[in-house]
Amino acid sequence: MPRFADHDQRRAEVIAAATTVVRDEGRSALTVRRVAKSVGCSTKVVTHYFANMSDLLHATWLASLRRGSKRFLQVLKADPGDLRGFMAAGLPLDDERRLDWSIWIAFWTEAHTAEQFGEDLRARAEDTYDRIVEILTKIDERGNLPKDLDIPVTARRLNALLTGISCQAMFNPQVWTAEKQLVALESELAAIGIR
Amino acid sequence: MPRFADHDQRRAEVIAAATTVVRDEGRSALTVRRVAKSVGCSTKVVTHYFANMSDLLHATWLASLRRGSKRFLQVLKADPGDLRGFMAAGLPLDDERRLDWSIWIAFWTEAHTAEQFGEDLRARAEDTYDRIVEILTKIDERGNLPKDLDIPVTARRLNALLTGISCQAMFNPQVWTAEKQLVALESELAAIGIR
Repeated sequence: MPRFADHDQRRAEVIAAATTVVRDEGRSALTVRRVAKSVGCSTKVVTHYFANMSDLLHATWLASLRRGSKRFLQVLKADPGDLRGFMAAGLPLDDERRLDWSIWIAFWTEAHTAEQFGEDLRARAEDTYDRIVEILTKIDERGNLPKDLDIPVTARRLNALLTGISCQAMFNPQVWTAEKQLVALESELAAIGIR
Repeated sequence: MPRFADHDQRRAEVIAAATTVVRDEGRSALTVRRVAKSVGCSTKVVTHYFANMSDLLHATWLASLRRGSKRFLQVLKADPGDLRGFMAAGLPLDDERRLDWSIWIAFWTEAHTAEQFGEDLRARAEDTYDRIVEILTKIDERGNLPKDLDIPVTARRLNALLTGISCQAMFNPQVWTAEKQLVALESELAAIGIR
């Protein structure tokens, strides 16, 4: 079915172009004209695949989420109790993860005002929270968690810390090098008392 | 000097209108026309005070920072070792703080690509970090910090947690109520071992 293959490929090209525009020029630079120029096509091609900029931004966000989910699942497939690996998979430690974070942060601004975006974002945050609860439960089953630890509260805090280190690292990469991000993560795991 | 007073007041009105637009409609809605409509003036008035949208967004950001600094200083003036109060002053626990966070998040997207914005943001983050170091040092002097605590690493982590709880609370206020934000904060202080 070459027509469908072309359709999907062209659509993916538009999303990839939008991703680069948001990373390099910010959300406010994302226009039909700018994306069309980047792909090297007419504005009609862009509007053929995406009804408006919200649609395109949403598709761009979903593409970055798929990359993120893939990283998370790789870690948990190898070891469902690997909290350290899970957190690291979410931090902007390399170019791919920095790219994804630049999209997520751009998306947040819209999510406050676009109802569907907000719902998607909340569902995603709850999904990450649920996974951290599962990981902590697994660690607990292995007897490696302090006995009196409140798993839901700790999972919320870890989820917030993941977001916080990532944001700080995105706008201050000189201070928050990959090494420093991991030091902060280790210090938190030590404070929790995870072996 | 009524002319200067008028100038400052008019400028503040434009900033206040821009603040509301960003909070309610997102960064991408911030245009000269939209702000002029909100103030009830011509677009020429807006462009008289601000050369472009970057200028206006920057001024809007500075205004929100001033509100934030005022809250921080109030806490530290009363007690320079009040870590709990300092962190709470930065969290989006009420409408004023939620408003400020909506501006900060909008500003982040631009800061990745606008050099001056990025520098301002980094300076601000370092300032918050420095203050947390000072507060932890004060707590240490009072003998209320665990002996082997790494103050710089802990201060970085607390700064990241402040950002992370705030971001999560901004897009998921149902889960991250003011009470839940404070529970997460308390759990971190307990994990650090701060009395």
